[in-house]
Amino acid sequence: MSAHDGLDPAQSGVGDMDIEAFRRHGHMVVDWIADYLGSIDDRPVLSPLAPGEVRNALPTAPPDDPEPFPRIMADLDRVILPGITHWNHPSFHAYFAITGAGPGILGEALTAALNVNGMLWRTSPSATEVEQLVVDWLRQLLGMGPSWSGLLTDGASTSTLLALAAARERTDLDVRQRGLAGRPDLPALRVYTSEQAHSSVEKAAIALGLGRDGVRTIAVDDRYRLRPDALAAAIEEDLRFGFRPVAIVTTIGTTATTSVDPLEAIADVRDAAVAELGHPIWLHVDGAYGAALAICEEHRSLLDGIERADSLVINPHKWLFTPIDCSVLLLRETQALSTAFSLVPDYLATDDGEVTDLMDLGVQLGRRFRALKLWMTLRYFGADGLRRRLREHVRQAARVAAWVERHPALELVLRPEMSTVVFRLRAGDDGATGEAESAAALTAVDERSRRLLRWLDEDGRILLSGTVLDGRHVLRLALGNLRTTDDHLQRAFAAIDDALAAVPSR
Amino acid sequence: MSAHDGLDPAQSGVGDMDIEAFRRHGHMVVDWIADYLGSIDDRPVLSPLAPGEVRNALPTAPPDDPEPFPRIMADLDRVILPGITHWNHPSFHAYFAITGAGPGILGEALTAALNVNGMLWRTSPSATEVEQLVVDWLRQLLGMGPSWSGLLTDGASTSTLLALAAARERTDLDVRQRGLAGRPDLPALRVYTSEQAHSSVEKAAIALGLGRDGVRTIAVDDRYRLRPDALAAAIEEDLRFGFRPVAIVTTIGTTATTSVDPLEAIADVRDAAVAELGHPIWLHVDGAYGAALAICEEHRSLLDGIERADSLVINPHKWLFTPIDCSVLLLRETQALSTAFSLVPDYLATDDGEVTDLMDLGVQLGRRFRALKLWMTLRYFGADGLRRRLREHVRQAARVAAWVERHPALELVLRPEMSTVVFRLRAGDDGATGEAESAAALTAVDERSRRLLRWLDEDGRILLSGTVLDGRHVLRLALGNLRTTDDHLQRAFAAIDDALAAVPSR
Repeated sequence: MSAHDGLDPAQSGVGDMDIEAFRRHGHMVVDWIADYLGSIDDRPVLSPLAPGEVRNALPTAPPDDPEPFPRIMADLDRVILPGITHWNHPSFHAYFAITGAGPGILGEALTAALNVNGMLWRTSPSATEVEQLVVDWLRQLLGMGPSWSGLLTDGASTSTLLALAAARERTDLDVRQRGLAGRPDLPALRVYTSEQAHSSVEKAAIALGLGRDGVRTIAVDDRYRLRPDALAAAIEEDLRFGFRPVAIVTTIGTTATTSVDPLEAIADVRDAAVAELGHPIWLHVDGAYGAALAICEEHRSLLDGIERADSLVINPHKWLFTPIDCSVLLLRETQALSTAFSLVPDYLATDDGEVTDLMDLGVQLGRRFRALKLWMTLRYFGADGLRRRLREHVRQAARVAAWVERHPALELVLRPEMSTVVFRLRAGDDGATGEAESAAALTAVDERSRRLLRWLDEDGRILLSGTVLDGRHVLRLALGNLRTTDDHLQRAFAAIDDALAAVPSR
Repeated sequence: MSAHDGLDPAQSGVGDMDIEAFRRHGHMVVDWIADYLGSIDDRPVLSPLAPGEVRNALPTAPPDDPEPFPRIMADLDRVILPGITHWNHPSFHAYFAITGAGPGILGEALTAALNVNGMLWRTSPSATEVEQLVVDWLRQLLGMGPSWSGLLTDGASTSTLLALAAARERTDLDVRQRGLAGRPDLPALRVYTSEQAHSSVEKAAIALGLGRDGVRTIAVDDRYRLRPDALAAAIEEDLRFGFRPVAIVTTIGTTATTSVDPLEAIADVRDAAVAELGHPIWLHVDGAYGAALAICEEHRSLLDGIERADSLVINPHKWLFTPIDCSVLLLRETQALSTAFSLVPDYLATDDGEVTDLMDLGVQLGRRFRALKLWMTLRYFGADGLRRRLREHVRQAARVAAWVERHPALELVLRPEMSTVVFRLRAGDDGATGEAESAAALTAVDERSRRLLRWLDEDGRILLSGTVLDGRHVLRLALGNLRTTDDHLQRAFAAIDDALAAVPSR
């Protein structure tokens, strides 16, 4: 093996990084992070690199010899950072704006250092009990009843998959044991959700063997909320044709518009369907982004009807300032998950008695101590501090909405209830006032809207995202970053104005 | 809000942790970790706490007010650490012994700080491209062909679920669209795996709607390897009865005994079955723990036949010194995953052209920059350094095995091929030599074996785990921790001898 300058003493042996080397490198990493967080404002939000540029800047083969730690760190600046789209940037307004705040970053370092696998209670009681504790803290903050409990997962896709697996088992069709295929007696299963629901519902249905056909999407009203009457009609029709309704998924804060489905009315529809069907129908609530706001008393009504639901997913990595990944799945009866999934092989059998082994509650066996960062985040900010920050983002969104409303070239799609502002280019603004409502004119406006986004991508000052609503392209400006100030809102307004000026109407 | 001493300047406002506070707390955390890693030897391996002790030591409700960071850190020592079972402990020999080595711990901190969501290529090119790069580095280290590619997931449970979902889609039964239920034309689907396979195969089958009945477990030979003749007979029988074989899961390094299924012979059986069936049958290889060893040339034969397989899972968080969680799923045709799962909602549509958006390859949409820690680990140790460390663990296992063989009260169940030693109490050692083979005597030996484990749990010097093989209780002593030295092996021998002396035969 060739010699390298700057290698740590233990690096060429058979052991771990030497403790004092860890200390030295660790301090270097902390300073790197602090410097990075302190200088984000100066970077383009979206990575300007072309496909392949990161990979081409790195060796195609792994090194045979150990490399000095500082050389690896140097590549962070040289290669990794230019290829980062800065979700930390205060002007990142795409998708949902998030923050991996300080206490959670340090919590992740501690989790990696402890490196426990919390599959069983005994394999680290702290991992299981702190997870149960933070789930319960969140339950209390949301004002939900004491019977709710749950677990952490990596994201809403997994949480919703687990909830729908529990729903599928609740059918009493013994899917866990017998599966779904090759059973001529089995009806086709249906999950109902709005056409504005997140794609994770459909992905879960694919995974669980319900298929895309197993998801019936329900029409929304003029504020993009699931229409209970349309849901009732769909279930009614399905029952006539012999389908088996398994679950309804409602959303608190849809991805496109942060709309809130009317949970109470949907629960009424569910109850009526259950009475007719004679079987339970699971009610799952996707609050991955929006449910967080319910920790503020004035927004508690977002959760009206939650006690009639069976499960709720909320992602602290979205709007509770916890680094990715961290999702919470709360269930009215957590037992439903172990009914679906618990399997204890001989090599994991214990005689610990009445404890919860979290591996029993899902697909995943191995589980890191993900609760630590959430516990540190909740303590560092405190409940009132979290509320204050959410209110600030709601205030910022209202300010952006007011600016859009006053803007001659823009129009608000929906008054924001949360921290995301959805707007579009005014059709009349492209000079084609007379025929503004014609399809061709709208297509031209939409095309301009898309070009405007691309112009902003390249400009680099801010990042927005777009989507399609009622066939029209719309723009989304999301708040939720703890470093976003009113100055950054001014920067966004200026960038959008510049984009409007730079991207001609036709 | 009440005032607290020691709060950071930004803590009572609406922003993130102040940069200089982050720097200060970060250095505190690094020192805490270094001190912890440097003092593990002095702690009991298994947490001595009783159920509820962690939770009872913490407030039942979340704090309203922010708490000073040092106070949170103080609770790490006061509450969290006593409730940790130290997977980092050099005398942790249970399950599989692992190491979350220094470079990976620091990598996790950086991942949390960057806090990107790599769902799309554009949402951080570095996250996607470094992930593809490290997957390819691992492919090269394993000597696999260039057509293999893949992705990182949280663990083997997810990786195997994704592989089996791809297998299910490969059936051409259009499960993605139409699902499995309510299709009288559909045969029951079958996955084949050995009775020594990991429980994740069965959990995946539950999730995917194949059910536990959809997993047919195949008998093993006297070295706990799947018997190809039994597999052939099982498939033959299933075909006669109209079942549809979907996949075969083989294992490189089973959980109980680190046995290696004969992949070439199994691939022969698969090929013959495919010829008869006229449909593809997926061959998935679970190398979560054991495949790592194939990076050493002298163990490369572990992967003989891999080019005939469709997918391989290997967990760098098991035996490649990367903190939990980090699993790699390699596929011969990664396209099979997007065929099963790709869904692009309007709000995530891009015009980036020919890039890989990793969200298309699985259930999970959100994905953190998990590749960074693996990339740093591979570079810090280098390929030769990794090989040297794996060989050290194989050497340690051989040393433990030799000790067991010489021990009058113990017998080796299997000569270890990897880093885990499986042994049991000699039946003749309980003084009942004459009737040693009688069921009652064996039951007594097994009972003593279980009590011995419990004694070691309480003693705290080392942690072993047990399982059941051929109806007999066996003990497992796993190596794989980078801080385990020959002195720790002596400690293990002494602890086991003390346990044998302390736990009477009857």
